[in-house]
Amino acid sequence: MNFNISVMRIGHRPERDQRITTHIGLVARAFGAEKMLLDSGDIDIKRSIEDVTERFGGNFSIEIDVDWRDLINEWEGEVVHLTMYGERVQDIEEKIRTHCRKNEGILIVVGARKVPGDMYEIADYNVAVTNQPHSEVAALAILLDRIYQGEELEYDFEGNIKVIPSKSGKKVKEF
Amino acid sequence: MNFNISVMRIGHRPERDQRITTHIGLVARAFGAEKMLLDSGDIDIKRSIEDVTERFGGNFSIEIDVDWRDLINEWEGEVVHLTMYGERVQDIEEKIRTHCRKNEGILIVVGARKVPGDMYEIADYNVAVTNQPHSEVAALAILLDRIYQGEELEYDFEGNIKVIPSKSGKKVKEF
Repeated sequence: MNFNISVMRIGHRPERDQRITTHIGLVARAFGAEKMLLDSGDIDIKRSIEDVTERFGGNFSIEIDVDWRDLINEWEGEVVHLTMYGERVQDIEEKIRTHCRKNEGILIVVGARKVPGDMYEIADYNVAVTNQPHSEVAALAILLDRIYQGEELEYDFEGNIKVIPSKSGKKVKEF
Repeated sequence: MNFNISVMRIGHRPERDQRITTHIGLVARAFGAEKMLLDSGDIDIKRSIEDVTERFGGNFSIEIDVDWRDLINEWEGEVVHLTMYGERVQDIEEKIRTHCRKNEGILIVVGARKVPGDMYEIADYNVAVTNQPHSEVAALAILLDRIYQGEELEYDFEGNIKVIPSKSGKKVKEF
């Protein structure tokens, strides 16, 4: 879980996208990204994700009010845009993993509303998790799972709260 | 993509959960479930998912106003409850696949608000996709991806609209 992966959410509208964007952030954290960047100033999301990180562990961070064009211009690694119109993840995952293994920074771009048309040109890879309409939350999880080849499921976040896997009921340890 | 898998969403509140539940339905369809069942009467969700199925293909169906306790009582196959407190998906996926291969019906239960405590006892399997808090949408996608071992990504829905994978831009065929 030490690939250098960040997730940029663009087009986020606080009044409409808060829950989905929160899911995006929590999936990014749980599946091994290091950071989420948000192109609007939604402090509620920042607080709720930082609260999870504080309790459940890890080093995930979140930055808000980020100009995504500036960010991409300055980004030294690869830019991976998640879109149902892109190349199939199963055809392209090995290429992306190769960049990760070289420790190049990967910026995964996840659109809320329709992304600006030039994003398809700006991105180094346009990646589709199925070419069906479904959910950017699911697409992000599957992409990260493919990049880490399932290893992200083994990660120990060493948090103050730890859920112990259980056949039935809830087992939680607090440290 | 012919395992007999249904997804039951319980605790859905139309005024609050509409987008997340819609994502659940679209992920269920795109990742190879046959049906979504909803415990409330949200006709908007039914319409929007049926609209996707009509355009993009497949035989996915959705039923609303379902009493989930009745459904589970009458369910002949296995009940798989997705929860961050459950057993690790990587430890249990092979067991679930075995039921699928025998063509037993699998009912995946996905809670919106907190599920009733007895769900942990009622379920044949309580399954966690990581024991971290993240998203039921992501958890469902990963579970289905594990059950189908990636084969769901190869499925051709034979719809009226077909997105052609593309390195950049949008390619869509209409039939």
